[in-house]
Amino acid sequence: MTERLVVIGGDAAGMSAASQARNRRDSDDLRIVAFEKGEHASYSACGIPYLVGGQVPDAQALIARRPEVFRDELDIDLRLRSEVTEIDLDRRTVAVCDHRDGRRYREPFDQLVIATGGLPHRPDLPGAKAGGVYGVQTLDDGVALLRALETGRPRSAVVVGAGYIGLEMAEALLRRGLEVSLVDAGEQPMGTLDPDMGSLISDALRALGVKVVLGESVEGFSESGGRVTAVHTGSRSMQADLVVLGLGTSPNTALAEAAGVPVGDTSGIRTDRRMRTAIEGIWAAGDCVETFHLVSRRPVAIALGTHANKQGRVVGINIGGGYAGFPGVVGTAVSKICEYEVARTGLTTAEAAEAGFETVEETVKSSTRAGYYPGAREMRTKMIADRRTGRLLGAQIIGQEGAAKRIDTLAVAVWHEMTVEEMTGLDLSYAPPFAPVWDPVLIAARKTAERVERLGGQG
Amino acid sequence: MTERLVVIGGDAAGMSAASQARNRRDSDDLRIVAFEKGEHASYSACGIPYLVGGQVPDAQALIARRPEVFRDELDIDLRLRSEVTEIDLDRRTVAVCDHRDGRRYREPFDQLVIATGGLPHRPDLPGAKAGGVYGVQTLDDGVALLRALETGRPRSAVVVGAGYIGLEMAEALLRRGLEVSLVDAGEQPMGTLDPDMGSLISDALRALGVKVVLGESVEGFSESGGRVTAVHTGSRSMQADLVVLGLGTSPNTALAEAAGVPVGDTSGIRTDRRMRTAIEGIWAAGDCVETFHLVSRRPVAIALGTHANKQGRVVGINIGGGYAGFPGVVGTAVSKICEYEVARTGLTTAEAAEAGFETVEETVKSSTRAGYYPGAREMRTKMIADRRTGRLLGAQIIGQEGAAKRIDTLAVAVWHEMTVEEMTGLDLSYAPPFAPVWDPVLIAARKTAERVERLGGQG
Repeated sequence: MTERLVVIGGDAAGMSAASQARNRRDSDDLRIVAFEKGEHASYSACGIPYLVGGQVPDAQALIARRPEVFRDELDIDLRLRSEVTEIDLDRRTVAVCDHRDGRRYREPFDQLVIATGGLPHRPDLPGAKAGGVYGVQTLDDGVALLRALETGRPRSAVVVGAGYIGLEMAEALLRRGLEVSLVDAGEQPMGTLDPDMGSLISDALRALGVKVVLGESVEGFSESGGRVTAVHTGSRSMQADLVVLGLGTSPNTALAEAAGVPVGDTSGIRTDRRMRTAIEGIWAAGDCVETFHLVSRRPVAIALGTHANKQGRVVGINIGGGYAGFPGVVGTAVSKICEYEVARTGLTTAEAAEAGFETVEETVKSSTRAGYYPGAREMRTKMIADRRTGRLLGAQIIGQEGAAKRIDTLAVAVWHEMTVEEMTGLDLSYAPPFAPVWDPVLIAARKTAERVERLGGQG
Repeated sequence: MTERLVVIGGDAAGMSAASQARNRRDSDDLRIVAFEKGEHASYSACGIPYLVGGQVPDAQALIARRPEVFRDELDIDLRLRSEVTEIDLDRRTVAVCDHRDGRRYREPFDQLVIATGGLPHRPDLPGAKAGGVYGVQTLDDGVALLRALETGRPRSAVVVGAGYIGLEMAEALLRRGLEVSLVDAGEQPMGTLDPDMGSLISDALRALGVKVVLGESVEGFSESGGRVTAVHTGSRSMQADLVVLGLGTSPNTALAEAAGVPVGDTSGIRTDRRMRTAIEGIWAAGDCVETFHLVSRRPVAIALGTHANKQGRVVGINIGGGYAGFPGVVGTAVSKICEYEVARTGLTTAEAAEAGFETVEETVKSSTRAGYYPGAREMRTKMIADRRTGRLLGAQIIGQEGAAKRIDTLAVAVWHEMTVEEMTGLDLSYAPPFAPVWDPVLIAARKTAERVERLGGQG
């Protein structure tokens, strides 16, 4: 008998799961229906800031696989603008609303993949629904903002939220020639970095011409004729022809929770290593799940396309009859704001303390290439190590071209619980166009190891 | 009583050892004399091609630490143009010839660091000593070649040897506007890569306008008036206003061997993990030693500044009273020839076979950034895995800007004996300016894992 697989959510996690399952099982064996409530499936949400900024010519460029490819080449019945409104675990059906014609129907399943993604935080404040206030969660959001930029001739923008997406949007709006303000309730941009590294980013943003307002919460928006005109914090008002909300997301678990699929303390759906939920035949992947942090050994919910793709692949292999597991994360992330590159992996100093580590930290200034080689750029590498053992717990990089991708080397070191002393012996590549003779990673490891040697174990 | 440390060789390994020892022991406790037979100490030999090519403005830029710094700040008695001609282990002295005035004397030591570097291969062929035939081993060599380029107006050059240094010199000479031929006895450039990857480099070199002659050994040089005019192989003659020899080096162990310090089968000086030779109080580091390959588990002699620096540091820490070890290498290397980046780590397919592995290989084409992001460049990543276990044994990268430094991530994976399947879960950084959503490293790991799954264990 043909098994029926239903996938809720047509982006990275859902469509990776569907594609992998199809690779391993043919249509006679597995029928696949995927529901996507929006206009677009299988696109790069992370590319939206570059669409808005103009580096990417049009929205189509962000589509990884066109809907026809799923239908024609993979025999996956992808239904766009089709929203799942309920999961019925007893009857093994989902309720669907087709927004193209308003039709409602039920679709039966044997196995179900929940890939409902993240729900953007939208502040419940006066004026938050005015015209000119944009989220940048979906490609539809990005297209709407792009249209506003091209037709509305805005001159000033306020970006609310100074995380990765907020910073990337600030760059995009700078590129469009707007006056840009960036507001965040925290005392630093990039709350996922240590404060000393975050403050380097504040400096860089200001040097780029961004008005950076930290430690102030947005309390409301003024509007005129239904369109936003200003953003207010407790202590100031900022004129705004448009507002971009970059406040992050939470796991979108309303459907799962209503059906009784257990979620964890992070509010993400709980799964095991194979991405199975607690309910037989129900899988989950992507921004809607929680995963395991290999350093803190705690569940975390991290919304990143790269995890969504991997988890989706794992689900698809398992549904396809193979065996795969998602091992967890070490918290790696990277971003770029104009010429500045920022990256992190592992735990910050505060996260390490919260997880019960006493730490030693060291920050070193070094160069992306041999100092004498053209194009050498300054970079700073911070390491956070366990004070007793010298184990690398986390690392952060801020620098210019060629700096940030070194975080991958550090991520693999964190993954393997290397000590900073062990890391000083790593056989990393060297040639003058690529690194100084001591790669910045090795210099940071040396300096941190020396600090551990001095301070370590004293108690 | 003040202990006496003598260091033979004033470049990376020797001066790292001296500096580290000084950091840990002051002048009353340890007297340090370092002998360097050339004009320059503590310079970046790897930077010579960029000096010749004009990217680096002058030889001074390649000097990491000026001789005065060693004398004045570190109280290290660095003696330039002073050649050690004998090590007398019984009397614990070295014999020195001061080339500035011809004076010969003996210097006593309690501890001795042998950092005599590599000896460039110079073919014993007719005409090999003609004017216009240059090595590029020392900074003095580089300066001499530079002078020849600036004053002699050469128009054609032949580079003998298509390894890293040969390719880098070919680029340098192209940049100087010369017609460049590259000759190698092997069937591919970069013999440290697999043939399929090496042939991509041949293609790239030819596209850059280099005449690439492979599989032909140089049999001699014509000269006229004491200057080289042509290079001859068995089947052709190439006009040459100058010749650059890039034939690699062997460990320079004449002094050590004459004194009875044991060398290994690789012809490098044998040391333990702390870089102690078999003789009490005699240490060795840098291009003159052999080290341990962590994948083949065999001794290897690899001449690289990065190893020399690390080994020198280890010697210095140990002489300084600390404890440090050099763990071995995984064979990482990187190079750049015009816009092409080349990197490798671990074992090649042939090296793996020789070490007793049956392998599975996979090469994937991917992109340095998200395909839609400006500046995305093509790159190829090859992985070599153990057929039975899927353990990553080696990897090679060829690509354009942003490709090659990913080798470090792979080097750490090889270091930790990761399987390619494990690697598919690695938490590597992703953002469109830095990588596609599946980093090339992850794509290659996936594809190789799939191949291992198909082929693995059969047999």
